[in-house]
Amino acid sequence: MTTIPVNTDPPSMVTIAANSFSALVVSEPRAAIVADERAWQLHGSALLRSLHIRGLDATSIVVPAGEACKSLVEFGRVHSRLAQLNFTRDTAIISLGGGAVSDLAGFAAATFLRGIAFYTVPTTLLAMIDAAVGGKTAINIPEGKNLVGAFHQPRQAHVNLGVLSTLPPAVFRQGAAELFKHGLLADDALSRAVLRPGFGPADPDLESIVAAGVTVKVRVIERDPRETGERAFLNFGHTLAHALEALTDHAVPHGDAVGYGMHFAALVGWRLGLGDVSPKTLAFLDYQRPAPFVLPEFDALRPYFARDKKTDSSGWRFVLLDGARQPILRRVTPAEVEPVWQKFCDDLRELWNEHSRLAPSAT
Amino acid sequence: MTTIPVNTDPPSMVTIAANSFSALVVSEPRAAIVADERAWQLHGSALLRSLHIRGLDATSIVVPAGEACKSLVEFGRVHSRLAQLNFTRDTAIISLGGGAVSDLAGFAAATFLRGIAFYTVPTTLLAMIDAAVGGKTAINIPEGKNLVGAFHQPRQAHVNLGVLSTLPPAVFRQGAAELFKHGLLADDALSRAVLRPGFGPADPDLESIVAAGVTVKVRVIERDPRETGERAFLNFGHTLAHALEALTDHAVPHGDAVGYGMHFAALVGWRLGLGDVSPKTLAFLDYQRPAPFVLPEFDALRPYFARDKKTDSSGWRFVLLDGARQPILRRVTPAEVEPVWQKFCDDLRELWNEHSRLAPSAT
Repeated sequence: MTTIPVNTDPPSMVTIAANSFSALVVSEPRAAIVADERAWQLHGSALLRSLHIRGLDATSIVVPAGEACKSLVEFGRVHSRLAQLNFTRDTAIISLGGGAVSDLAGFAAATFLRGIAFYTVPTTLLAMIDAAVGGKTAINIPEGKNLVGAFHQPRQAHVNLGVLSTLPPAVFRQGAAELFKHGLLADDALSRAVLRPGFGPADPDLESIVAAGVTVKVRVIERDPRETGERAFLNFGHTLAHALEALTDHAVPHGDAVGYGMHFAALVGWRLGLGDVSPKTLAFLDYQRPAPFVLPEFDALRPYFARDKKTDSSGWRFVLLDGARQPILRRVTPAEVEPVWQKFCDDLRELWNEHSRLAPSAT
Repeated sequence: MTTIPVNTDPPSMVTIAANSFSALVVSEPRAAIVADERAWQLHGSALLRSLHIRGLDATSIVVPAGEACKSLVEFGRVHSRLAQLNFTRDTAIISLGGGAVSDLAGFAAATFLRGIAFYTVPTTLLAMIDAAVGGKTAINIPEGKNLVGAFHQPRQAHVNLGVLSTLPPAVFRQGAAELFKHGLLADDALSRAVLRPGFGPADPDLESIVAAGVTVKVRVIERDPRETGERAFLNFGHTLAHALEALTDHAVPHGDAVGYGMHFAALVGWRLGLGDVSPKTLAFLDYQRPAPFVLPEFDALRPYFARDKKTDSSGWRFVLLDGARQPILRRVTPAEVEPVWQKFCDDLRELWNEHSRLAPSAT
């Protein structure tokens, strides 16, 4: 068991256990478990048993898996259910699932009766490293992802590493993107550990590796809980990632998109003369084996890079690395970025060719 | 011009002007005015002109008047509009209208991109005293009023008293309920001022009277910003009020419902042997001339008084007054409350009889 305190306001904590839910301690007398269908089927009864042993009155609210649950309709449905169950201010919501369900459940907890307690039990590596820590919650609207949300710190995020062995290997490797990113940003040993041959759900060092990834994020959000400064560095790789997700209507999963996005951002830094991390980001893609997609024209990316049309002319904001552990926020012009896209596409075609020659058994 | 600083986190302020919007100072370069139809027609162009003079880029988002705007659908529509306008984190929402539109607009501001700046320009007396101060924002779901929301302090609430003369007299008197309530809770001179003959939009002391009402609320929320204690006293009269609103599907307007609710709570306190304020609350009803409604059976009220079904057996929580300026929170049993309902109904029948004999010209 590892415990990582999080000094936010209110304080939070992350617990990591090899194969148990028992370290999840809910202080409120009643809770609703907001779970996605898959997670509920696989882990619902074990989680419920563990909570019942502690005397908690818990019920479930099952939502669709993936981004589909982050809609206004599902948001309203969760609230209606809580009201029908006569939930009061001293109740709690526990999310069980990936990052999407934790975003939805956290936003519902932030807003039901203007805020009730929130706990999260992530079931994907991605959610363990990213969504479970930091208090960012959100839903989507037709105009874009995560446009509506709140900051709401979970009282506890409990990581049961045992659930990772129930995931397809590709989903585990998608999640490794955030782990690797945190290593690149702040912890060389961590990024090396991810690239070690055989890194996977059965890694004997998994607990300390996940703990290291969580710790990087915890330190950043402690210093910048509302993303006014340093926290933006955690978006390394996310500018292209969000564009690819939107352009492919999420056919490229988030972890894969971040893997691609990190390499793209590394190449942008390299072209601007910063310390080169692109060999590392390419090595990660080689490990990750992300799903290929139809490479868009550069022009199709422009509107996604220019999030605020009024600042378009002065350039786009990118998180870049000036060598490992040296993140910077930089405004880059379209003219600086466009040539990088060709190099990036070449790298990807070569990578996909190589991966297609390997046996697809590990996917 | 009166300025009342509000020491919340972040700090807020209330400005009160006799007949101008010019004291509203928005720091952000862009803003959306979320206005209800009526308020927009009456005051939209004057507010826009005042903002444009200061160099603000402002657009409008018009929503239905009254509770109809506090729906998930309107909430989503405001967000979509903000996204279509490419609003970024350094923009603001200004609400223009009554309490309902300020609840909706404030909740949208609390959640768009996880929170942008909020300003409010109340156009009813009720909203000036109540909704514009304190940061409580919310929307409704079919299961109940204000069940989904957030705490989000406005940077500034600007009160232009001139708008009150455009309201029907009955709407002004509805708003006087919160003013009178604040007087009862903390300021004898204020409750006397409301009961003075001729109190209305043209009262030469209106600015200082409204300032006194706002100040009572400001002092309470400064000490208890998230309603964990003392702030609950502001709910004096609201237990019955919410029940009447729900039972009549809002045919009884909020201000009238609070007028009724204060008298009911006063009678409950009187029956429990507390200092009697019921002559004052009856005098207020005599001033207010609230709209009659079909008096329900006591049993119909029970489910509304018992907000948490699990605590039903141990009684209902009421805010009571042990004489003027002595609010207390008390658990009362159904057996203690039921006989009061008959006395209350008798008082109302007498009041309505008397009012029906008066000319209805002032309504």
